[in-house]
Amino acid sequence: MQKSGSSSSLGPGGLDLTQAFFRQIQRAAPPSPTKRHTKISVVGAGNVGMAIAQTILTQDVVDELVLIDAKADMLRGEMLDLQHAAAFLPRTKIHASVDYEITFGSDLCIVTAGARQVPGESRLNLLQRNVALFRNIIPPLALYSPETILLIVSNPVDVLTYVAWKLSGFPSNRVIGSGTNLDSSRFRFLIADHLDVNAQDVQAYIVGEHGDSSVALWSSISVGGVPVLSFLEKQQIAYEKETLEKIHKEVIDSAYEVISLKGYTSWAIGYSVANLARSILRDQRKVHPVSVVANGFYGIEGGDVFLSLPAQLGRGGVLGVTNVHLTDEEAHRLRDSAKTILEVQNQLGV
Amino acid sequence: MQKSGSSSSLGPGGLDLTQAFFRQIQRAAPPSPTKRHTKISVVGAGNVGMAIAQTILTQDVVDELVLIDAKADMLRGEMLDLQHAAAFLPRTKIHASVDYEITFGSDLCIVTAGARQVPGESRLNLLQRNVALFRNIIPPLALYSPETILLIVSNPVDVLTYVAWKLSGFPSNRVIGSGTNLDSSRFRFLIADHLDVNAQDVQAYIVGEHGDSSVALWSSISVGGVPVLSFLEKQQIAYEKETLEKIHKEVIDSAYEVISLKGYTSWAIGYSVANLARSILRDQRKVHPVSVVANGFYGIEGGDVFLSLPAQLGRGGVLGVTNVHLTDEEAHRLRDSAKTILEVQNQLGV
Amino acid sequence: MQKSGSSSSLGPGGLDLTQAFFRQIQRAAPPSPTKRHTKISVVGAGNVGMAIAQTILTQDVVDELVLIDAKADMLRGEMLDLQHAAAFLPRTKIHASVDYEITFGSDLCIVTAGARQVPGESRLNLLQRNVALFRNIIPPLALYSPETILLIVSNPVDVLTYVAWKLSGFPSNRVIGSGTNLDSSRFRFLIADHLDVNAQDVQAYIVGEHGDSSVALWSSISVGGVPVLSFLEKQQIAYEKETLEKIHKEVIDSAYEVISLKGYTSWAIGYSVANLARSILRDQRKVHPVSVVANGFYGIEGGDVFLSLPAQLGRGGVLGVTNVHLTDEEAHRLRDSAKTILEVQNQLGV
Amino acid sequence: MQKSGSSSSLGPGGLDLTQAFFRQIQRAAPPSPTKRHTKISVVGAGNVGMAIAQTILTQDVVDELVLIDAKADMLRGEMLDLQHAAAFLPRTKIHASVDYEITFGSDLCIVTAGARQVPGESRLNLLQRNVALFRNIIPPLALYSPETILLIVSNPVDVLTYVAWKLSGFPSNRVIGSGTNLDSSRFRFLIADHLDVNAQDVQAYIVGEHGDSSVALWSSISVGGVPVLSFLEKQQIAYEKETLEKIHKEVIDSAYEVISLKGYTSWAIGYSVANLARSILRDQRKVHPVSVVANGFYGIEGGDVFLSLPAQLGRGGVLGVTNVHLTDEEAHRLRDSAKTILEVQNQLGV
Repeated sequence: MQKSGSSSSLGPGGLDLTQAFFRQIQRAAPPSPTKRHTKISVVGAGNVGMAIAQTILTQDVVDELVLIDAKADMLRGEMLDLQHAAAFLPRTKIHASVDYEITFGSDLCIVTAGARQVPGESRLNLLQRNVALFRNIIPPLALYSPETILLIVSNPVDVLTYVAWKLSGFPSNRVIGSGTNLDSSRFRFLIADHLDVNAQDVQAYIVGEHGDSSVALWSSISVGGVPVLSFLEKQQIAYEKETLEKIHKEVIDSAYEVISLKGYTSWAIGYSVANLARSILRDQRKVHPVSVVANGFYGIEGGDVFLSLPAQLGRGGVLGVTNVHLTDEEAHRLRDSAKTILEVQNQLGV
Repeated sequence: MQKSGSSSSLGPGGLDLTQAFFRQIQRAAPPSPTKRHTKISVVGAGNVGMAIAQTILTQDVVDELVLIDAKADMLRGEMLDLQHAAAFLPRTKIHASVDYEITFGSDLCIVTAGARQVPGESRLNLLQRNVALFRNIIPPLALYSPETILLIVSNPVDVLTYVAWKLSGFPSNRVIGSGTNLDSSRFRFLIADHLDVNAQDVQAYIVGEHGDSSVALWSSISVGGVPVLSFLEKQQIAYEKETLEKIHKEVIDSAYEVISLKGYTSWAIGYSVANLARSILRDQRKVHPVSVVANGFYGIEGGDVFLSLPAQLGRGGVLGVTNVHLTDEEAHRLRDSAKTILEVQNQLGV
Repeated sequence: MQKSGSSSSLGPGGLDLTQAFFRQIQRAAPPSPTKRHTKISVVGAGNVGMAIAQTILTQDVVDELVLIDAKADMLRGEMLDLQHAAAFLPRTKIHASVDYEITFGSDLCIVTAGARQVPGESRLNLLQRNVALFRNIIPPLALYSPETILLIVSNPVDVLTYVAWKLSGFPSNRVIGSGTNLDSSRFRFLIADHLDVNAQDVQAYIVGEHGDSSVALWSSISVGGVPVLSFLEKQQIAYEKETLEKIHKEVIDSAYEVISLKGYTSWAIGYSVANLARSILRDQRKVHPVSVVANGFYGIEGGDVFLSLPAQLGRGGVLGVTNVHLTDEEAHRLRDSAKTILEVQNQLGV
Repeated sequence: MQKSGSSSSLGPGGLDLTQAFFRQIQRAAPPSPTKRHTKISVVGAGNVGMAIAQTILTQDVVDELVLIDAKADMLRGEMLDLQHAAAFLPRTKIHASVDYEITFGSDLCIVTAGARQVPGESRLNLLQRNVALFRNIIPPLALYSPETILLIVSNPVDVLTYVAWKLSGFPSNRVIGSGTNLDSSRFRFLIADHLDVNAQDVQAYIVGEHGDSSVALWSSISVGGVPVLSFLEKQQIAYEKETLEKIHKEVIDSAYEVISLKGYTSWAIGYSVANLARSILRDQRKVHPVSVVANGFYGIEGGDVFLSLPAQLGRGGVLGVTNVHLTDEEAHRLRDSAKTILEVQNQLGV
C-alpha cells in the first residue's frame, strides 16, 4: 500500500517502495514496551534549547529527541535543520511539535522556555509571568510522562525548579535545576586557564543560588589532586581572601560578559546540560552541583527551597547529596541565599 | 548499617561510609521497570568473546555487560581486568558468572562458546558436540530473557544459528548469526587497500554460507558511489571473472591466514559484532550481511535454513531482508550453499 | 615571576602559582616544529561559522580552533561561551581575534564570511561586494598559512571558491568549496526517511552548482547496496522521471524552507563542514561531493570553473575526482551549470 | 602503470584501476613534512601490546599505528586481524614489521616487550635479560625517531624506564614509565565500587614504585570533591590506618589475582596506556601518576631514579611534577622505594 500523503514516493502506481526494497520475514509481536528506547524532550527551541538539543544529538546521548515550542514555524525550521544532518550522525529520531502529546513517555524533559524581561518590569513581575508559563508547560509534561525526570534550565533557575516541583507533584528526586553546574564549569576553566592545566583536572564547586549570591567552595578545590588551600598554607604562601574571591567574581561576571557581548549564552549551557543528561540517562552516578531540595542541609530551614549542592545523579534522578564540608562562613552564605529565595517564593503563591 | 562481608570498608565501627558521604533526599518508589537500562550478555569468555566484550565496552554501547563461561577462574580474571579500567571509561556495570541467572533481562545475548575440533574428529562429530553445548546454553538464555535477541557467533555459524532458533522457540526475527558480516568487512578492506580509499566508502557484500562457499555480490559493489562492474564496462576495461574472484578468494584465505599466523581471530570479529550490537540496541535500522532465515528467497527451498543476506537490523532484531539483485549464477550458488547446510542439519536431528 | 596583567592570580606577592604547583624537571629544547598540533581557523563567527566551530569542538577534530570576525565584541562573546565549556570537553585551545595574525600556521581555513543581500540589490552587485570582502580575507590567510587548505562555505559557493583560488595563488587541490556536500546529505535524509532506513546506508550524490541547477545523480544512488534505478527496472516497477525529480526538488526547496522558517540554516551545514574537516585533517581519503576545479571533466570547457563533483579528500586536500558515470542528460546539465557560472565569473574581473 | 606485485589488481591489461577510478587534478608539491600525521609505534605484540594497540585504534587516538615484534608470523596475524576491521573504524594506517625502520618518525613509542621469568631464575637475572633486550630495542627507536617520546610498560617498569632513558640519551622529559597509572585506576575502582559512585569522581593516587612498595596518598584522596581523610575527621568517624591500608593492599593483590586467574593482565593496562597516549599526543596537559625522574623530590637522593609521581603530560612529554603534599611517613616510604631501586640499578651497570 502506498504511503498516503507522501510527496516523496519513489514508486507510483500503488506500490510501496519500502515494501519492495525489504522483504519481511516472519515476525512475532512487536518489541515489548519494556524495551523502549531513551527519549528526551526539550521545551523551548530558542538559543539555549537548541544548543542543548544539538549537543545531545552530536554526543549521541539518546534514541529520540523531541522539540517543543509555541512558535510553530521557527520550530519546524530548527527540526528540519537538525534532520538534514542525518547522514553525518548516528540515527536519532527527531520530532517537533507545539503539542505536548509528542513528549509521551520521555525519560527526561529539559525546560528552557522563559519570558524575557520587559524594560521597566520588576524582577518579581517577570517571575510571575514565568510561573504562568510553567503552568502551561509542567502539567502536560507530567501528564504525558508521569515517570520522567524534569531538568529545569529557565531562569531564575532555583525558584523555577521549586515551581516545577510543585506543579508536577513529582517526588523531589525527579526534579532538578541546572543550577550552578555551568558556573562551576566556568570556575574550573578560569582556574585551569590560570594554571595552564586541563580543566578536567580541576575539582571545584560553586554552590548555592545560581547568580550573584552563589558560594565558591574554596575548601574543596583541588588541582590534579592537590588541595589548593592546604597547599597554599603548607607552602606558607600568603594569600588574601580577596584574591580568591576575585576569581569567583570573574565567574559571576563572565556570564554577564557573554550576554553583553553576544546577547545571550548558548554553547556552554548546551554542553553543561548535555553532560547532565548523559549522567542521568546512562545512570553514571556522577556528582554535579545542581539545584535540589536543600532544606535540612547546613541549617537551611523555613520551608522547601531549591539550591545547588553537589548531588549524585543517575537514572533515578537525584540519588543523594554529597556531604561536602562548608566553612562557617560558606554555610552562613548558603542560608542567606536560601532565605532570599524563600522570600521570593512566598510572594508567588504557588 | 555496615556493608556486611565487604573487605574494603572505609569506615569501621558500624558506620556505612556511603551513607555518611551521601545524604539521601526523599525518594519515591524506585525507577519503574519500563525505564531499565540496556544489557548485553556474552556467552564464552575466550579470545572472541572477550574481544567482543571489550570493544562493546570501549564503544560505550551498553549500560550493563555480563560475561558467562564455564571456567570460573578465567572468567573472574577477565571480569576484574575489565573492571580495573573503570576510571578510563563511562560507567558500565560489568558482571560475570557461571550461572545463567545473571543474564536475566538481557536485551541481547551474544553466543561465542564452541567446542574445538579434536584431531581426527569428523566435522559432523564436532558439530554434534556443539549442538550438545547449545542445549545447555540457549534454553537458559531464553528462560531468563524471553524478549532477548540472540546473536550467534560460534561456528559453523549458519547451522548453529538454526540450532539456536529451534532451541529457543523464538520468532526468527530475534535469532541472528554474525554470518558474513566480518567476511564483508575483509572484502571491503581488501578493495579499499587496493584502490587506496577509505573502506567505509566501499559498498560490498559477501553473502551465503560463512565459509568457503560464500558468494561475493560483484553486481552490487560500488566505491565512492561508483558501481564497479558497470564502471569497468563503460570504460571498456577488459577484465576476467577470474581476476575478480581472486579478491574473493583472498577474503576466504585471509581468515585461514590469521588463524594459521596467530592461532585464532579476535580483533576483527570483536569490532564486527560490536557493530551489530550497536545497530540492534540503538535501533539504527542499518543493513548488514548476517545469517537469517533464507528459505523463500532466491528460490531457496527444502526446509528452514539460515544464510547470510543483507538484512536491516534494529531494536526488533531483523526488520527485513534487502531485495538485492543476484545474477543467475550468484542465485545458483546460494541455493547450492543452502542445500549443503540443509543436508548437515538433517543429520543433526534438532 | 608573576604573570603580568592577569587578574586571576591566586598567589600574590611575586609568586607564580603555576610554578609553585608544578616543579619543572629538566627539559630539552621545546618540541620540534615538525610535531605541531592541528589548527583550524574559522573566518566569520555568525550562525554558520559558530555552528561549524562548535561541531568541530564537540567532535574533537582539532587541537587548536581560531575564530576570526570583524565584530570584536560578538567575537569575544562567542569565544568565551565556547571556552566556558572546557570542563566538558577534551582540551582544545580556543582563540579569537579581528587580526589574521592569529591564524598563523593553520592546517585548514574555513571561510563563512559573506555580505547579505540588500533589498533591491542585484545578485551580481552582491557578489561583487563579497569579492571585495574576500580580497580582505584570502590574502592574509594565504600569507599566514601558506601551506593551508582553504574550505569555502560562503555563498554563492562555487564562484567564491574560484575567487578564493585566484586570490590565494594556491594550487587547486588546496582550495575546496563545501558545495553540494550538504545538499547530498539532505537528499540522503529524504530518501532514508521515505524508506525508513538509516541515512548512512543511502549512497546518493547531488553534484554541479550548489543551488537551483544542481544535478541529482540518480544512476549512482543505492540503498543498502541495492542500486535504485536498476532495482526499479528489474522489478518492472513503472516510474516516471518526474517522480524522481520531485525528491530532488524537495532537497532544493528544503534549504529555502529552513531559511524561511528560522531565518538561516546552521546546524546541518555545521555538521557537514565538520565532516569535511575531519576527512581532510585526519587524512581519511573519503569521497565527498564538494566544489573543485571541474573544467576538463564531462566536456566542461571555456575556462577555470569550480563545481561540485565526488572528490576524494585527505591531508593533501583534493586527492582526485571520482570517475562517476553521468547519463548524457546529467552531463549536459553539468555543462550548462558550468556555462552560467563562467558567465558570472567573467563579469567579476578577478 | 600497474601496481607491481599486487595480487588483488581489479584491472588487468596494464591498467591501474585506482588511476581509472580517480582522475587526478593538478597538484602542487606534496604536503609539506611539517604537516605530517601522528604516529605511534608499539614494541611487543603480546597480550599487553595488542590490548594497547587495539584500544588506541578503537579510541581513534592516532593516524598511523605500527607494531614491532621479533615473531614475524604472529605479528603479521595480529596486523591482519586489526586491518580486517577497517570498515568499522576511522581510517588508520596499520603496519607491522620485525624491522625498526618502520617506526621512522614516530611521535610516541610504547615498549611492552620483556622476557618472562624462567622457573628458578633470580629477579636480577631476569632484569639483566630484559636490559639486554632493551639494548636491541631502545637504540633503534631513538635512531629512527630522535624526537619521539618513549613510554615504557615492560616490568619492572621503574628500572626499565631508567634503562631506556640511559640507552636513548634522551632528555628525561621524553622518557616515561606507565608506572602506577594502572594501580591508581584500580584504586579508584575499588573506592568507587565500595561507595557506589563513578570511578571518574574518585581522585586518588598511588605513587612510588610500581609494585609491592607503592604508596597510597590517602591525604589527597577525594570523592566527588570531598577530601576523604578530613571528612572522616570532621565527622568524627573513628578509623584505623589498617582499614585504609586494606584497600591499598587489595590494589596490589588485584594485579596478582588477575594474573593467577587468567594468566596475564591485558585490558586494563590497554586502557591505561591508551589514556596516557591521548594525553601526550593531543597535548591534554593532564596529571597522571607515571614514572619520571624523581631524585630531588621529597628528599630522594643517591642518583638518578625513576618513580611514579603525579606528572603533567603533554606533547612535550613530562611538563612538570605536581607538588603534592606527602605526610612524613609517605615521604619516608617513597625514599625507601627509591633506595631499593637504586641498589638494583647499581648492579646492572647500564
